[in-house]
Formats: sequence, C-alpha cells, structure tokens
Amino acid sequence: MSPDTTRRIGVVTNILAANDRVAEENRRRFAKAGVCVVNLISSPGAGKTTLLEHTIPALRDLRVGVIVGDIATTRDAERIAVHDVPVVQITTETFGGSCHLEASTIRQALDQIDVDNLDLLFVENVGNLVCPAEFDLGEHAKVALLSVTEGEDKPLKYPLAFQVSSLAIISKVDLVPHLRFDLDLLRSHLDRVNPKLPRVELSVESRQGMDTWLGWLREQVAAARG
Amino acid sequence: MSPDTTRRIGVVTNILAANDRVAEENRRRFAKAGVCVVNLISSPGAGKTTLLEHTIPALRDLRVGVIVGDIATTRDAERIAVHDVPVVQITTETFGGSCHLEASTIRQALDQIDVDNLDLLFVENVGNLVCPAEFDLGEHAKVALLSVTEGEDKPLKYPLAFQVSSLAIISKVDLVPHLRFDLDLLRSHLDRVNPKLPRVELSVESRQGMDTWLGWLREQVAAARG
Repeated sequence: MSPDTTRRIGVVTNILAANDRVAEENRRRFAKAGVCVVNLISSPGAGKTTLLEHTIPALRDLRVGVIVGDIATTRDAERIAVHDVPVVQITTETFGGSCHLEASTIRQALDQIDVDNLDLLFVENVGNLVCPAEFDLGEHAKVALLSVTEGEDKPLKYPLAFQVSSLAIISKVDLVPHLRFDLDLLRSHLDRVNPKLPRVELSVESRQGMDTWLGWLREQVAAARG
Repeated sequence: MSPDTTRRIGVVTNILAANDRVAEENRRRFAKAGVCVVNLISSPGAGKTTLLEHTIPALRDLRVGVIVGDIATTRDAERIAVHDVPVVQITTETFGGSCHLEASTIRQALDQIDVDNLDLLFVENVGNLVCPAEFDLGEHAKVALLSVTEGEDKPLKYPLAFQVSSLAIISKVDLVPHLRFDLDLLRSHLDRVNPKLPRVELSVESRQGMDTWLGWLREQVAAARG
C-alpha cells in the first residue's frame, strides 16, 4: 500500500466520524418533527427522479418534500417542483464537486425546508452507487435503486449499497424483454449480498410494483410518526 | 459552508496534487515502453467490460493488456481473461473501498503487467461517472461511456467526465426504439458541455460504430509509438 493510499484511508475515516456526529443531530431534528426521511441512492440514470415524479402524485394525502443532490444543474429539482411540493436543490459543485451528500449539506438544506410541516421527506442523492452508501444523513431508511439495464452483477460489485439499504428497487423491469438480462440471476446476487433485503421489481411505465412501493412508504411514515 | 465541508475541500486538493505527481511518473513509464493507455470511465453498467470483450478479439494484431478496477469481485477480469490477454484486477476494497482508481494504484498494478511488451493498455475504471474523471492516471486518453438507458441529461449533470475525455461512446444504441429517449437531445447536451468532443454511437449487438471505435484506437496506438 502506497503512502498516498494510507493517507487517504485515514482521511476518509475522519470525514466519516465528523459526518456521523452531524447525522445524529439531523436524526434528532427529524424525530422532533415526526417526519420520515427516505434517502434514494443509485447510479446515474437508474430512475430516481422519474420514480419521484410518479410517487408524489400518488401520495396527495401526505405532506411531501424533496431534497435533491446533484453535482451540477437544477434539472431534477425543476422536474419535481412541477408537482407542487417544496424542493431544495443542493448542487455539490460548490462543495468541491462532491460525489455524494453529507449530513452537513442536509443540515444546511433544512434551513430552506420546513420539516415540521412534512410527513415524508425524500432525499434524492447524487447519482453514484459508491459513496452515498457510506454517508449517514440521519435518514430513517436508504433505498437502493438498480435498473435492469445495468446488469445482474451490480449487487456483487457494489455490495455496501445493498447492505445499508432498507429496500431495493429493481427499476425499468418493462425493458427486460429487450435485454440480455437474467432477472433470476440478479435476484440470486441480491440474496448473496443481503438475503433479508426486501425488494420491489418496478416499472413506472407498466406500474408493476408501484402499489408495493407506495405501501412500503406509508408504513415508514406511520412508524416515524410514532 | 460548514467547517466539515471546508476541511473536505482542502483534503481533496492535497490528494489530487499527490496523485498528479505519481501520474507523471506513470506517463514517463508508458512513453518509455511506447504503450498507448486508454482509461474507460462510466456509470456502473454502461457496458465497459462488454465493449472490451468485443474490442480485444478485433485487435489480434496488437498486443493488448487490461487493468480492471472494481470495489469488489474479480468478475470483470475473469470475463476479459477468457480472451487470452494479460489482465490485472485491482479491487479497491483494500484501499478503503475507493470509488475510483488513482495513479498510485496503477503504479502498483504495473508490477504485475509487462508494459514493455504491450501496444495498448486499457484501464477499466471503477463504475462511477464522478471521481474517475478527477484523477489523472498518466493515461493517453480517457474515454467516457454513456448508455442510452441513462437518459439525455447526464452530460449536463456530470460535465467533467465529458470535458476531460478524448472520446465519448454512446452505448447500447440498439435499445433506443424501446426507450423514451431523444438521441438528438443527448447530442445537443454533449455539444453544450464539450462541442469538440468526438463521439461514437455504438452497439455491440448491431456492431454499429464498432469500426469507428477500432479505427480511433489504432490512431491512438500509432501516435503513442511516436
């Protein structure tokens, strides 16, 4: 192991410890407000924003808000704001182009969104299956999205994302007939990495899995209300 | 900006400066060997390994080697080794689960692959469109892959990857008829981020774009020989 690498591992440990302290503060803030916080993580293009566009209109009886993380652009926030819910966009360009959200960036976003008047707050993390899995934001649950176009091997290659999440969503399942893709093989890889992880096979096009996903969200909201 | 964030930006700068020194050493090593080094970067599942599986058999007149980066598993290296070329797998789990390759990890890999007997060395980076764009490995060219299933907006959201690359490959174009996807819109987004970036629209299924890609590679190899 090179000196550079050793130094980097030390650095990452310090950052994670600092992050965890702020995450605890966020967690207490969310508990006080009785708001359920769900952190969506995936590769770029797995369908996080599209899923939210289809989820928010189906939860009109709940007060929903969204924090969106991106390196650049406010495109995702604009797509979500159309649905008339409070949205805060974090562009991490101003944080050194960071490839993930940290607890401290969430804390700052809370200045701009009134969590006391929300039942459910989504955090749409930066598109990246690696670092977002490492950073606790103080959320109630992480949800890992994986699209069928990404291949069956991704749970084995990015195990942490599927080990720290409370739910896996296999997205774009309507595309399976057009792909060289073995859904059973993906299922067995998820079993190897985290056999207890609940999963939903979902398509916003066919609506397959949408009711299961919405039901899961309602359970989380009820649990967070206490 | 929080104190945590300020600290992180400082840290990232130091890491990049340390990386660049090692990258220069690698670059001199590659020049001495007359080997051309091409660094493939993309999101998970954009098709880097599949592209190499189709590229290597088409370049039998060249001496090709591959360095594969992954967080976990040796699956990609195994897929490539079938084609009877020297392969080194770097699993970054042992480097703190790093989400990208650094120059120093490449330098270590060079102990296990004889670059003096190669014409072309591919580096298949960790699946991530963010950090791999920031780290110089001493390569001749970065190539950014983007699959059509990821959506038209990705060049705007991950601009650096398309600004530091010498070629963009738009992969899986055979799937366009099955997607809500506007190829012209993707082209215009690439123009906005980097109008001079050459691009190849490619499918290993239909072989569209394969000859252009192979021709581009042969030009790079000829230029590296000097």
